[in-house]
Order: sequence, then structure tokens, then C-alpha cells
Amino acid sequence: MARLLTLIENQTQEGLDGLAALYPHTGRAHVVGITGAPGTGKSTLVNELARAFRGNPEDDQRAAAPTVAIVAVDPSSPFSGGAILGDRIRMRDLSGDPGVFIRSMASRGALGGLARGTAGVVQALDAAGYDKILIETVGAGQAEVDIARAAHTTLVVAAPGLGDDVQALKAGILEIADILVVNKADLPGADSTQSALRATLEMAHPDGGGLATAGHHAMVEEQPAPAEGWAVPVLATAAIKGDGVEALAKAIEDHRGYLIESGELAQRERARVRAEMESLLRDLLAERFLLRQSEARFEEALEKVITRSIDPRRAVSQLVLEAQAEA
Amino acid sequence: MARLLTLIENQTQEGLDGLAALYPHTGRAHVVGITGAPGTGKSTLVNELARAFRGNPEDDQRAAAPTVAIVAVDPSSPFSGGAILGDRIRMRDLSGDPGVFIRSMASRGALGGLARGTAGVVQALDAAGYDKILIETVGAGQAEVDIARAAHTTLVVAAPGLGDDVQALKAGILEIADILVVNKADLPGADSTQSALRATLEMAHPDGGGLATAGHHAMVEEQPAPAEGWAVPVLATAAIKGDGVEALAKAIEDHRGYLIESGELAQRERARVRAEMESLLRDLLAERFLLRQSEARFEEALEKVITRSIDPRRAVSQLVLEAQAEA
Repeated sequence: MARLLTLIENQTQEGLDGLAALYPHTGRAHVVGITGAPGTGKSTLVNELARAFRGNPEDDQRAAAPTVAIVAVDPSSPFSGGAILGDRIRMRDLSGDPGVFIRSMASRGALGGLARGTAGVVQALDAAGYDKILIETVGAGQAEVDIARAAHTTLVVAAPGLGDDVQALKAGILEIADILVVNKADLPGADSTQSALRATLEMAHPDGGGLATAGHHAMVEEQPAPAEGWAVPVLATAAIKGDGVEALAKAIEDHRGYLIESGELAQRERARVRAEMESLLRDLLAERFLLRQSEARFEEALEKVITRSIDPRRAVSQLVLEAQAEA
Repeated sequence: MARLLTLIENQTQEGLDGLAALYPHTGRAHVVGITGAPGTGKSTLVNELARAFRGNPEDDQRAAAPTVAIVAVDPSSPFSGGAILGDRIRMRDLSGDPGVFIRSMASRGALGGLARGTAGVVQALDAAGYDKILIETVGAGQAEVDIARAAHTTLVVAAPGLGDDVQALKAGILEIADILVVNKADLPGADSTQSALRATLEMAHPDGGGLATAGHHAMVEEQPAPAEGWAVPVLATAAIKGDGVEALAKAIEDHRGYLIESGELAQRERARVRAEMESLLRDLLAERFLLRQSEARFEEALEKVITRSIDPRRAVSQLVLEAQAEA
């Protein structure tokens, strides 16, 4: 499994072929995205969530508990070895439970590469039969939003002292949250963080419903915003002590039920597949074009743009028109 | 100017035409990217940096001081109005100085849209003759890395209590830093944050040089890593009091001198233009393809992928092959 995931993550031909073969078996897992600023204790929370889903190891019923895969999207530097070290530390925490699989993804150089690699790994884990797939992303950037968008249920994690000021708004990912979590709730200021987040939610949604008002939806094309009718809960946890994690696991289950009943799950799935196909189309067309094009011609155009004798957009248009005329 | 920037940010035809007309006048400005986690006081630091570059308002020499444009890439939600409010607050700080221009960008839904809009706005400000363009991004995600990559000089900002643990590594943007800043240096723990960052840098680069060892460079394709021979400084500032900001402004100037002398500036520019052209090529080809394609056919393929009767990659290949056969 680990080897296949590496092939998929690196987008090798073998990995892509494997993914194509697995594709018919996907679509069963509940994919949960967990994001938030550094320092909010997301890794610990994700580990404890996995434990909560798995239940008591002494329990005879454990065979019936959902299996869990954790995908940690960790932008650690390639030279730090952070991803591998992180896996080892986590493995120790959850060791001995064959119902839990952990995988870290290192950030790659190219925009979109990380999101695509993660999507492939999630599909493979889905096909392999994991019931819950927890994707943990560090940070609050656009790529994190895109990765969260691939999830069915998105948690945004805050912590006291980080999330109780205007930064909570600035983090700008409140609007993708299905569930808000104030972790490290045993620290001072947790209550005010929770209140601030509630106030922010209420400001945005005075109707008390979900975040997707019609007007907002129209501005953010194709983005499957949290469904109307789902009131985003703000939950407190102290993951390091295990406090509040059971309630969070229940809220995640509740959200899944809501998605299925409301038909929102099918809508989100459609938007996700459409975005994936459009992205693949872009890559395939560009790859085919550059293969047929002489490299010298692209370099010539590049040189003209660098010397400012033509703007990049017109240079690219000309390349495409010339290629068309020759075809 | 503000109207033109809006047209460019929204990628309207008028904006794109304006950008093409301005393009020959670009390439003069020094573009500085400032990034880091929320809560590190980046906005205050950027304001104070602008003030440091501008010099004393009473000074007769001010006419000779560099002009400054600030581009704040603010992922505030579209409904919060955060970007506009932010501009007003900042305008008050730097008010009355016609040599400073401030522009906030709101995050858009589409991956890459924000990076592209920001690049266009920076080009327009460059053509308009601003000497220093400060791009401030919130967060530590992939999109921030990409935006930083478009800058000549990249600052990564940390703060005590946020950056002094393993999260500093996890933020994973150390490797794009030309200059590291510990802001809020008047708070307890600033020294240990600075030491931790220095230790991290030394671990990564035991030779004491820049971050771009040959092995590392090879792993991160096309990414213009910080140049060899530039020793990344770790500077302390307390922007709210103005402490250390002059020294930071000087380090930014030093880095610019280094880039020019070493030839690294030209290399970074070439990598940036190549990436921009490849991205434009992807978009143009996909747009042309979808225009010629019947919408029904794409929807049909989408349906097949959703029902798992074909995988997305093969579905897209088939669409392209069918279109080619018909042409």
C-alpha cells in the first residue's frame, strides 16, 4: 500500500494506472478535512479523533468500528525529513491498531501538484476500504482551501490566543467550515475565542442557517459552500487530554447524515469531479501542445517576453495560433 | 489607478488589454514578498517598512526616496468586507504621503486565480513607477509560496510563542526565505525563537551559505530557491515601536544588491516568466477546447466518472482524442 501511494503521490505512470484500476471501488469513504493555523494542535486532535472513531481496544465490538486513514499534508521541507519523522511519532501513538493507516505527504514545488497528489492518495485509501479518511492540512492558504473542498466534512481548528482577534476573520477559512473547533480549550481565553467565532458566524449568517446564502454562492463559482440548513457548531476540545473529542466525532457523524439526507453529498461530489476533470484537461492539452511544439519556439517567445518586447498573454496566443495554422 | 487594478484583478478583457499595454514599462520595481502565520504582526511590519523606505516626512530629500506600493493579499471572506476596511485603517497610518499606494486583494474561489490577479496588479504598479512593491500574504500555504516566488526578495515573519517549536519547521516556508524576521521581539521568548530559527537554518545548511544546495534544488523543479552565497539573516523587530525596522529595510536593500551582482535576479525573472507563460498556455488551450466542444459531451463524461464507470483521467483523454478525430 505504502509503495502504491508513493507512486500515486509522485504521479508516475504506474501510479496513475493503479489509480485508474482502483477508481471503480472509490466513493464509499467519508472524507474529513481538518485545517487551521499552525500551533492549534491539529495533529494531536487528529490522532485523538482516530482513537475516538476506533473505540476501546479492549472492546469486542472493535471489529465493527470504522477503519481510519490519516493523510497529513505536511509542507515540511524536503531536506528536514519532517514527514517521515512525523509518521514515526504518530505511529507510536496509535501503534498496534491495524485499523489505522497513517500517511504524510510532503509539499511539492508546483502549484496544484500537492492538491492532485493528495486527491489520488485519498482515492486509493477509499478504494482500499478505509471508512474515515482524515486529511490534515497545515496553514490557511488557498491550497488548503482547495484540499478542504475535496472533503465531505471540513473542520477548521482554532486555539485560544490565536483565534480570538481579527486574525480569525483574516484566516478567511471560516466560510469553508462545517464544524469549528476551539482546541486547547484548557488554556485561558478559550471561552472568548469560542464567543468570537460564534459572533463571526452570526454576523455572516444572521439567519442562523448554513453559510451558503444565494448571494455568497454566486460570488464563489463552483465552490461547494457549507449547506443551508446546517448550523455550524463551535465545539471546544482539549485533545491532549482527550476532552471533547467524542462529541466532535459525533458532530462529524451528524454532518455526514445531514449531507446524505439533504442531497448535498451528491452535489459536492459532482463539483469535485468536475474540478478534477477540468484540471486534468488543462494539463493534458498543455502537455500535448508542448510535445508537438518545438522547444526552440517556446524559448524564443520566452526571450521576447523577458526583454519586454511582447506581453506574456499575447506571446502565448501567438504560439497557439501558429501551431493551429500549421496543423 | 484603483479602477484599472480592479479590472486587472478581476481579469476582465479591459484589464488584460491595459496590462498588455503596460507590459513594456515593467521590470524596474523591487518586489518584496512578506509572509508568515497569522498573529505575527505582518501588517504593522509592512506599514513600518513602507515608512522606513520613505524616510522622514520633514526631510528635504524625501522627493528622492523610493516610492512604495503595498499589495495586501487578504483572504478575508467576500461578505466581511475585510479588504476595504483594512485599506482604510492602513490609509490612516500612512496618510498624506502621495509616495505610498495601498491595495488589498480579496481571495477568489479558484485555485491560481489569486496568484494570477496579484501578479497582474504587481505588474501594473511596477509600470506605474513604484520603486518598492511590498506583497503581504497571510498564511503559510502553497498559494503563499507561489506568490512569494514571484517576489525578488522574500521575508518570512515569525513571532515568539508561534515559531519557537516544531511548527517553525512545519510552516515549511523557511526554504523560500531570503530574510527571516522575528517580529514582536519585545515579547518574552523572542530570543529563543531567533535561536530556534538560526538552528533550523544551520541544520539545513551546515555550509553556512544560502539554502539552495544542488541536491535540494534538483528536488524542487523550477523553483528559484534562495541563492547560494547569500547567508539568510535572522533579524528581530518590534514593528509596533518601530524597533529594528531600519535594519530590516537595509537587509532588503542588501539582498537586492546581492541578486543583481550574482546574476540571480535574471534567473529568478526567467523562471517567473516561464511559469506565467505555461500557466497562461494551460488556460488558453482549455478555454479553446471547451468552446469547440459541445457542453453535453463534457456533461456525459462527467456523469460516467461520477457513477464510477470510467476514471477521470481516461474520460478526459477520450474527450481530447474524440475532438482530435473530428478536427
